[in-house]
Amino acid sequence: MVLCGLAAHPALADWRARTIADEALKTTSAYGRLEVLTDTIGARLAGSEAERRAVAWARAEFEKDGIAVRLEPVMVPVWIRGEESAVMVDPFQQPLSMLGLGGSIGTPPEGITAPVVVVTSKEDLLALGEQRVRGKIVLWDHPFVRTGDEMADYGKAVVHRGSGASDAARLGAVASLIRSVGTASLRTPHTGAMRYAADAPKIPAAALSIEDAMLLHRLARAGHEPVVRLTMSARTEPDREGANVVAEIRGRERPEEIVLVGAHLDSWDVGTGAIDDGAGCVMVLETMRLIASGPPPRRTVRAVLYANEENGLRGGRGYKAAHRDAMDRHVAAIETDSGASRAVGINVKAGEGAVEALRRMMTPALAPLGATVFKPGGGGADIGVLGRSGVPIMGLLLDTTRYFDWHHTHADTLDKVDPEELQHATAVLAAAVWILADAEETLPRGPIEPDPAPGEAEESGKPAATGRPAKPKNGHD
Amino acid sequence: MVLCGLAAHPALADWRARTIADEALKTTSAYGRLEVLTDTIGARLAGSEAERRAVAWARAEFEKDGIAVRLEPVMVPVWIRGEESAVMVDPFQQPLSMLGLGGSIGTPPEGITAPVVVVTSKEDLLALGEQRVRGKIVLWDHPFVRTGDEMADYGKAVVHRGSGASDAARLGAVASLIRSVGTASLRTPHTGAMRYAADAPKIPAAALSIEDAMLLHRLARAGHEPVVRLTMSARTEPDREGANVVAEIRGRERPEEIVLVGAHLDSWDVGTGAIDDGAGCVMVLETMRLIASGPPPRRTVRAVLYANEENGLRGGRGYKAAHRDAMDRHVAAIETDSGASRAVGINVKAGEGAVEALRRMMTPALAPLGATVFKPGGGGADIGVLGRSGVPIMGLLLDTTRYFDWHHTHADTLDKVDPEELQHATAVLAAAVWILADAEETLPRGPIEPDPAPGEAEESGKPAATGRPAKPKNGHD
Repeated sequence: MVLCGLAAHPALADWRARTIADEALKTTSAYGRLEVLTDTIGARLAGSEAERRAVAWARAEFEKDGIAVRLEPVMVPVWIRGEESAVMVDPFQQPLSMLGLGGSIGTPPEGITAPVVVVTSKEDLLALGEQRVRGKIVLWDHPFVRTGDEMADYGKAVVHRGSGASDAARLGAVASLIRSVGTASLRTPHTGAMRYAADAPKIPAAALSIEDAMLLHRLARAGHEPVVRLTMSARTEPDREGANVVAEIRGRERPEEIVLVGAHLDSWDVGTGAIDDGAGCVMVLETMRLIASGPPPRRTVRAVLYANEENGLRGGRGYKAAHRDAMDRHVAAIETDSGASRAVGINVKAGEGAVEALRRMMTPALAPLGATVFKPGGGGADIGVLGRSGVPIMGLLLDTTRYFDWHHTHADTLDKVDPEELQHATAVLAAAVWILADAEETLPRGPIEPDPAPGEAEESGKPAATGRPAKPKNGHD
Repeated sequence: MVLCGLAAHPALADWRARTIADEALKTTSAYGRLEVLTDTIGARLAGSEAERRAVAWARAEFEKDGIAVRLEPVMVPVWIRGEESAVMVDPFQQPLSMLGLGGSIGTPPEGITAPVVVVTSKEDLLALGEQRVRGKIVLWDHPFVRTGDEMADYGKAVVHRGSGASDAARLGAVASLIRSVGTASLRTPHTGAMRYAADAPKIPAAALSIEDAMLLHRLARAGHEPVVRLTMSARTEPDREGANVVAEIRGRERPEEIVLVGAHLDSWDVGTGAIDDGAGCVMVLETMRLIASGPPPRRTVRAVLYANEENGLRGGRGYKAAHRDAMDRHVAAIETDSGASRAVGINVKAGEGAVEALRRMMTPALAPLGATVFKPGGGGADIGVLGRSGVPIMGLLLDTTRYFDWHHTHADTLDKVDPEELQHATAVLAAAVWILADAEETLPRGPIEPDPAPGEAEESGKPAATGRPAKPKNGHD
């Protein structure tokens, strides 16, 4: 009867959202969990032993909180970085700071030594033509230009990471280097996923630090032809079994209707995956704990800590494959994969009027928290496939001013997380999930779109909560 | 006759200082020279092939400008970093970001694997006692606390880099790690010089990135005993011949009186020595070019680009040994070794009333440039020995807000230098040197002090222009 009363009074539902948020703001358990994940498991690339330990840890965390949890197996790619280095050998000997790109092949053991040709765009490369590219290492010195919207800026900056190697290989290049896609550097390389096109030879691909890319570019402009030796023992092994960690709080009135809240449990193999996306995982764990601490919402809340977001999106695609028949019953999905800073709002990709509906539903509980931005956007990398089945997908928007200083680097470590900001982001996420799961109203469903071909979908590693309008066929989301 | 006119009118001398500064502000040749030094020679540790090339380059630059130049040989230590790595092997496997400290011995080829004990001070270490230190790796997790005066803050932060290894070894430690001494980090280790005390066993010494020091400290606090494997092939080879590059503009009236302007040509073996101290070297080159472009000043201006500031101060001590009989004729020495940002003033260590005298002499020309800070200070590492013979020593004070983000790291590269700020610092230095060399007045000489024992003087690597009062016996200056 109490439950019915709760459901009957919108103001009471908002009050419950606010108590959830208040509790999140008061407790430090999100940070405590993140400390354990990053300090005692650390980097957890798909297919690694550490990823398996992270899965076991996440399951145990849900169990400890009394939340029903299961593992849903998915096969994940196994890319192993191995030893790697780059050194400029002419006009003088200078070690270059680099990271291989995920998915790259290795070089011969003695490395690849070749002159570098610098381009800033694909037009640049095509203008050079095969004669000036064949036998060379192509360096894409394409900068990250800040305009105040980091997610949109990242989208423009990252274009050559995925496709640059194949673009260069089609003209006979022997390796491809990018300028790291980041907003700060202390000789800091940023890794990320790349993919090979079917119509191009496979050549090794790596990221140089911004400083090193600038050095090679300056030397080229000054009339030198810098020569670089790139050595990588990267390799891909057969797929291994990984798992999505799926936890659930059964709804009290419409348990068949599902509100999904997701983050990804895997990370790159450098750093310890604190902001990408350990923070998201602990926000989801906390969201479930907080919602479970009172009467359940109208609908079922399902948490998914995805496998393999970074270099394959197998978790996201595997979830959809396993739940294909239940797409109509997924009334909403929200992902948090943009770091650990204060939340500013939510973006959404759904049917006509979704932004306004979201604003109407969320404002009473979120405006007092300062989360007031509601806008169209891509949701998240893992839940993009759900959006193609019409599921309204959302991304938690955080302050990303410094996110790309650390994204995909050795520096993605716990110390970058401010405990209070993490609590704030958790509060907004938990309140939003409660509202999505308890509100009478649901968001309008979006159009049905075809899923991308597997090859296309392999390009991932994009942060989830982009402020850009959804681009359904770009293989990102 | 023109020259006599110039000398007779203080206002005209100030006018000349201002035209020198104006010319420095207009020309980009300082940055152009720095680009060549850092982009085509790069890191140039004492005793290296690159240092020899830097010496030849500097001599040629002076010659190109028509300045008389000579090499004054000094023997320099030869420390070779070799291969190095650190990895936490328990409670989980985590590569640590590190740099060996200059002067350290290596480890056995298989490395040293031992539990880590974390201390924040020497008191901490002594309180632990031999029983809890023997057989361990000591980590000095002593932070860089900013108070708004980076040079003073650095002085407090760096204390364990030099002496920490011997302090730890006296209690039986098998290796010593410090938290990097810096103000920003993207897993960025900062190297620097260390020294072994005669009464302690020699153990390997390295710096971890701030993040890695924090990780080990958190784990220790959480009840773990992290185990680290440190592997270093560092070694010291017999001294080799290096050289101070000495250039001179002969004074028109008192050529026997010398105003020395210095910077150091060597750098650490990481980064490309742009801010430490390539920038200082090109400021000195430009100062000489600008002064030589008109009638000479009253006194002789002598530029010294020192060898081996970073890990031995052999250049500074060698210069003094070679010119011991001329100390009385050195009326002033000024060093620039604090980066490449805007100049804010000059510090001085000399006789009573020196600060006021300096302010009086410099204000007409420097105040219009915004350089208005005149205060007591240490001068510079290379010229400290001159100060002990009573020579008034000065340091060019720059804006050091970001200096310790990059100091002694892989990230000390050209892109950190703003060409216009470098021009501003050059303008202030050149005007100041002109004034010191041309003014009727000279600064009061300081007291005579004994030179430090060679062992003491080996601790260098401190930035020159500290705002702290001079500490004549601390082995730094």
